[in-house]
Amino acid sequence: MNRQAWTARPDEILRAAAGFRLDDVDAGATPGFHGDKVDGKKQLAARSRVLGDLQERLYAGTRTGDATDAVLLVLQAMDTAGKGGIVRHVVGGVDPQGVELAAFKAPTPEELSHDFLWRIEKRLPQPGFIGVFDRSHYEDVLIARVHGLADDVEIERRYDAIRAFEHRIAESGIRIVKVMLHISRDEQKERLMERLDRPDKHWKYSPGDVDERLRWDDYMAAYQTALERTSSADAPWHVVPANHKWYARLAVQELLISALEDIDPQWPEADFDVAAEKKRLAAS
Amino acid sequence: MNRQAWTARPDEILRAAAGFRLDDVDAGATPGFHGDKVDGKKQLAARSRVLGDLQERLYAGTRTGDATDAVLLVLQAMDTAGKGGIVRHVVGGVDPQGVELAAFKAPTPEELSHDFLWRIEKRLPQPGFIGVFDRSHYEDVLIARVHGLADDVEIERRYDAIRAFEHRIAESGIRIVKVMLHISRDEQKERLMERLDRPDKHWKYSPGDVDERLRWDDYMAAYQTALERTSSADAPWHVVPANHKWYARLAVQELLISALEDIDPQWPEADFDVAAEKKRLAAS
Repeated sequence: MNRQAWTARPDEILRAAAGFRLDDVDAGATPGFHGDKVDGKKQLAARSRVLGDLQERLYAGTRTGDATDAVLLVLQAMDTAGKGGIVRHVVGGVDPQGVELAAFKAPTPEELSHDFLWRIEKRLPQPGFIGVFDRSHYEDVLIARVHGLADDVEIERRYDAIRAFEHRIAESGIRIVKVMLHISRDEQKERLMERLDRPDKHWKYSPGDVDERLRWDDYMAAYQTALERTSSADAPWHVVPANHKWYARLAVQELLISALEDIDPQWPEADFDVAAEKKRLAAS
Repeated sequence: MNRQAWTARPDEILRAAAGFRLDDVDAGATPGFHGDKVDGKKQLAARSRVLGDLQERLYAGTRTGDATDAVLLVLQAMDTAGKGGIVRHVVGGVDPQGVELAAFKAPTPEELSHDFLWRIEKRLPQPGFIGVFDRSHYEDVLIARVHGLADDVEIERRYDAIRAFEHRIAESGIRIVKVMLHISRDEQKERLMERLDRPDKHWKYSPGDVDERLRWDDYMAAYQTALERTSSADAPWHVVPANHKWYARLAVQELLISALEDIDPQWPEADFDVAAEKKRLAAS
């Protein structure tokens, strides 16, 4: 299977372009994909090999070639939306040696003493790598806004700072893929209830999850504004309907493949004399 | 399939115990495993789920429980022996969110200005994680010895320093699994030749690989001494025959499973009132 399974490129149809309204997105839809869950699982396995091949070329080109490209996947979502599943099932299909994963939790006192982008800068992927941010600098305009951790002037400053930051890192060779996994409020309730029903999932639950859930509308408003203010040509946002986990995984996988195809990494030329090395090796 | 596919525990039969001689190991053997390559691939897939489940428990226990356990897989080998394949096919079967991978290259000037264990300490896995070292502090008693980068007195100091270091980190809760992947000299020649034959593998080849190969016997002697001096109860070495890649992967997978089974991680108890939370969630 290939991208023919899609009626349109996910990077185009899921992009938060001008006039985008989060309210209009159906979290239970599977836009652009021909097929059901069974087809989706087959497609995920088949496209995993394509993604893995592209990743290896990306890595190779920066080892002995002079390419400086990297990819950065930024994952944002409400709790239970499936960030972990994306890391496990999409990123997990790629050679771990080519992946740099950073999970951003509540900032430490040291991190708080710096500008909000300080800790982000340190975790940017090296050339040749696929970086994955599980949460990111966007928490500083989402939770910070919803909980009033920063005033309006500071939040406004941050949108501009993010645009400038992302523009700079895109120019340095990092291809940025920003994804909001979008679930419905009802779907979240079901998923949290499942965590409470299963003793082997209790560790994933925190009473704070319900507190956050009660601010759902505030979060959606904060996302809407963040998407509007920071979806740029360098670093567009994609909103991925995520009530169907299989669809969300497939869509994010395809977004990564598109980013890598745009880079179009090539195997580097040998920087040694192949015939001479064969002789030396044969004699060794 | 389960460990019944083995006639004996790999962590026992592959251990470099007192009197161990590297010369006696047949790199082309598949000790302890009933079956061939096809059986091996099925076993790898089946046991990957067991490893993944144990890893999730390990992680969970340190998130909300008070466990402090971690696992550290140390991989050492001559070039082409298959460290990358272990990372890709064994470690790659585990949720990337539970893995911390560190590849140690030639030390930087800053690293060289510190004691050789300085850069190692910084990359030790956090509680709950499986750390993987692709090369390690053992380079400082292997390449350093073969190339005379340190004198005999310093190399002797390092063996002792490594034992003390590994004892300390084992006491802190890190279960250490040290693996030397062992290929034959002929097998290495074939694998290097394949890299030269395939343009998509040229980036993995360096003329220095043949230079190192010419010191094969010196490396084997350095390994023999390192294994003798640093295989301890806290941190035993295992020598895994690796001419058959499928066997080496299976054996290392089983070594990780054994280490995790010895830890026996449990799902942590909820630290909140489950019934009360169900009510709060239902009302939200």
